[in-house]
Amino acid sequence: MAKDRKERRPRAETPKGFRDYFGADLAERNRMLAQIADVYHLYGFDPLETSAVETLEALGKYLPDVDRPHAGVFAWEEEESGWLALRYDLTAPLARVAAQFRQELPTPYRRYAMGPVWRNEKPGPGRYRQFYQCDADTVGAASVAADAEIVAMLADVLEAVGIPRGDYICRVNNRKVLNGVMEAAGVLEPADPDKWAHERGIVLRAIDKLDRLGPEGVRALLGEGRRDESGDFTRGAGLSGAQADVVMAFIGAGGMAGAQGGAVDVLTDDATDYPGSATMETGAVPQGVVLARLRDLVGASETGRQGVDELEQIAALLDAQGYGTDRAMIEPSVVRGLGYYTGPVFEAELVGEETKRFGSVAGGGRYDDLVKRFTGQAVPATGVSIGVDRLLAALRETGRIGRRAAGPVVVTVMDRARMADYQAMVRELRAAGIRAEMYLGNPRNFGNQLKYADRRESPVAVIQGEDEAARGVVQLKDLVLGAQIAAEASLEEWKNQPAQREVPRAALVAEVRAMLEGQGGGTPERKWE
Amino acid sequence: MAKDRKERRPRAETPKGFRDYFGADLAERNRMLAQIADVYHLYGFDPLETSAVETLEALGKYLPDVDRPHAGVFAWEEEESGWLALRYDLTAPLARVAAQFRQELPTPYRRYAMGPVWRNEKPGPGRYRQFYQCDADTVGAASVAADAEIVAMLADVLEAVGIPRGDYICRVNNRKVLNGVMEAAGVLEPADPDKWAHERGIVLRAIDKLDRLGPEGVRALLGEGRRDESGDFTRGAGLSGAQADVVMAFIGAGGMAGAQGGAVDVLTDDATDYPGSATMETGAVPQGVVLARLRDLVGASETGRQGVDELEQIAALLDAQGYGTDRAMIEPSVVRGLGYYTGPVFEAELVGEETKRFGSVAGGGRYDDLVKRFTGQAVPATGVSIGVDRLLAALRETGRIGRRAAGPVVVTVMDRARMADYQAMVRELRAAGIRAEMYLGNPRNFGNQLKYADRRESPVAVIQGEDEAARGVVQLKDLVLGAQIAAEASLEEWKNQPAQREVPRAALVAEVRAMLEGQGGGTPERKWE
Repeated sequence: MAKDRKERRPRAETPKGFRDYFGADLAERNRMLAQIADVYHLYGFDPLETSAVETLEALGKYLPDVDRPHAGVFAWEEEESGWLALRYDLTAPLARVAAQFRQELPTPYRRYAMGPVWRNEKPGPGRYRQFYQCDADTVGAASVAADAEIVAMLADVLEAVGIPRGDYICRVNNRKVLNGVMEAAGVLEPADPDKWAHERGIVLRAIDKLDRLGPEGVRALLGEGRRDESGDFTRGAGLSGAQADVVMAFIGAGGMAGAQGGAVDVLTDDATDYPGSATMETGAVPQGVVLARLRDLVGASETGRQGVDELEQIAALLDAQGYGTDRAMIEPSVVRGLGYYTGPVFEAELVGEETKRFGSVAGGGRYDDLVKRFTGQAVPATGVSIGVDRLLAALRETGRIGRRAAGPVVVTVMDRARMADYQAMVRELRAAGIRAEMYLGNPRNFGNQLKYADRRESPVAVIQGEDEAARGVVQLKDLVLGAQIAAEASLEEWKNQPAQREVPRAALVAEVRAMLEGQGGGTPERKWE
Repeated sequence: MAKDRKERRPRAETPKGFRDYFGADLAERNRMLAQIADVYHLYGFDPLETSAVETLEALGKYLPDVDRPHAGVFAWEEEESGWLALRYDLTAPLARVAAQFRQELPTPYRRYAMGPVWRNEKPGPGRYRQFYQCDADTVGAASVAADAEIVAMLADVLEAVGIPRGDYICRVNNRKVLNGVMEAAGVLEPADPDKWAHERGIVLRAIDKLDRLGPEGVRALLGEGRRDESGDFTRGAGLSGAQADVVMAFIGAGGMAGAQGGAVDVLTDDATDYPGSATMETGAVPQGVVLARLRDLVGASETGRQGVDELEQIAALLDAQGYGTDRAMIEPSVVRGLGYYTGPVFEAELVGEETKRFGSVAGGGRYDDLVKRFTGQAVPATGVSIGVDRLLAALRETGRIGRRAAGPVVVTVMDRARMADYQAMVRELRAAGIRAEMYLGNPRNFGNQLKYADRRESPVAVIQGEDEAARGVVQLKDLVLGAQIAAEASLEEWKNQPAQREVPRAALVAEVRAMLEGQGGGTPERKWE
């Protein structure tokens, strides 16, 4: 009977792959988002918030996971509206907005956006189905100056949130170069772009997995295919050995993937929770040499040559603006997994000793055809997306952001009949800008009130029993000093601690403020920043 | 053929009932959310962000729209996870969190949350399927002091965002009183609570529609039913005339619904876009009289008496804390539509001349059984939810929040070969904290650059042609002064405007700053606040 009733209860759980964010974590994230937004804003980008729900057709199918229904999105059918879906990124909705409001928006339209996106993918440690992105994009600018600006801004953003120069690198590549290489290798025919499109998709996704699979794994996927540790076989693109050589030479041209000249660089062991993150020994190949290698590899391909020219221009623009190769550099193995990129692509990777295991924390590129899907007219666009949660995790690792306790002053309830007096104390404290509350649980067990103050990381507890009330005083307990013993001690022991002081009731606010200032925190900070 | 291709294009539209938020609107909303969060924080509440997606069973079915599948939520089935849904409010997820993390969280747990919620309801003007809520709740406090605190805080929040005292009123009622009245009327049998549950549901929803239907409409729904203007018939609760009299006397006990003593107050014409908003002539019935009437109406009902006692205590607590009936008062016609309330309920209504058409902007109450659904153990809880979009619309109506132009300084491109020089100007401005960008569109048509600056509400445009470069100067155009003519005038006319000045290149930053300060705006404000 009891069991029966229990079975009818809903489970108090988030769906698999979803999570909640509490207090200090959330405040930290909002602080970082504000720092990023400040840089975006300084660069002239305006905020935009699109709805979480889009029509499935507006989102399009650009996620790497093409083998599953709905390509990795959460989608459902409504009687009137047809198929709807949760956005999987902030770029597809921007393309929809740029098409929908093309008459009203300025050209170029420069916007930033921050918010959750949803992916219907297999969750794993540190990999959730809802996560935050923070994007900036320029729509309507064909010039590579727009791409170079995005890369420069990305470097500025990383430094603004606390990643020191030298601990990150922005890597830049160009899909046109990759297409040129494919042309040279004979898996792309400019006159018939649909031919071998499936094979090229496999090549793209294989390269994108370089950090996880290593050069041998990628090479296997370029050819017949690859069997992973579990025994599962993934079919490859079916390229010939000579064709695969060209592609491997391309991704090795920066010295990173180790395919150039046959020398295989050491891949660090991927012992991280973060899928897709891995770092490699980088060869210090000069930019000019990389560009020359690429020019050689694309051969006679018009697209390829254009791509190399663009990379050269971006490198020159970044250099002129003072962004050296310690901050941004060309790296041919960066291709990004999303299907919609058409030109320059870039990503930011953490390379500092403490943070390199977090790998890529931002990525983006040019997607000139996304708006065209809607309007039929080409609209050039480029932008970047920052993986907020991973960047935050990396910053926590460095200890550069701390979880500052900012709990409220807790006015305890010694005497249930005098609640109005306690509330008056709370009101006075709040009126002075001091975060405060009266204990609202059952006041019978005073120990619970102290435990509560402890859990809230309260800086000060205020106590006034009958005796204190009669004498016109209150007890102030400095909980930062007394934290370690508060949980166990009895009320009498606790009252005798040096961290406790008796002060006149009339001096409550002034004395609490002095105690907070003595703790070095001043008045508790605003939380939502 | 062309037609065929067009038909394959996706439509650049949000799904019906969804919308986007741009620049200034978004900045305004975030500013208001920060103001609300500051008050919540000051009161000791901690932030929480739950995932947008919950299991359908965790959300439960509490929306008023019980006649439709999924009761007004967006839901879909996943192979592994079963039925998932977008949260329809922030309370149901809080109950799930309180149950899931009951070991880790402090008791009471006081949290605030802000974010979008989704309702699968018929959209209408000003009524969207995704909208923002901003909630604060205390979980684990049985005392009505927790309810009184929420009401007081709600008043403080409204004043903090800019609604003056006198232009809002917080109305308080108690579901226990309503249940007591139902008991007295013979539609609730304490020993058999499931009996007449369906009828009581109709009564509750009828009362909740008082502002839209008027007393006659409610009365009809208490009895046989009601035919609306469209001819549709809604079945009523089937109460007898005598039973309906008791209920009508209850909702009229505060003098608002006009049922008390047979005098029907005038309902203002509901000429607003906002469903559910309407204001009425309020009778100034003293609180003591209202309480006496309620005590009379609940008769011998134990629950009813307890409800009246609680209302009396809340009124006393608010009074002791200095919240007079100009800010918070008892009003029996307030019942709130959601099914999960078990005790005190409250809402804030705007009553100022300019804003009264916006009606109710916040509501909440006590829901002691929501956590129990999961754990089997009763966990008392109470809280408030603010309808952010409607409150924002009301504040706009009063002109108390303005859309301050804060566009970037635009460095125009006169000479494509000198992009690096223009970028250097932009960098200097940004380094000085001045929002700036280089024009990234096609620079050929200079008029388009000026139109762009105009659309961006740019405060200053920087111009440097060959001639200026040779002389080591730049032109600064004050666009706030010159806005009205910028769009039409030719470059030459435009250069002759008094709002334009030639300054040395080396003085660029200082001169731009002086111009911005002259415009009264200082440097453009941070946007994400």
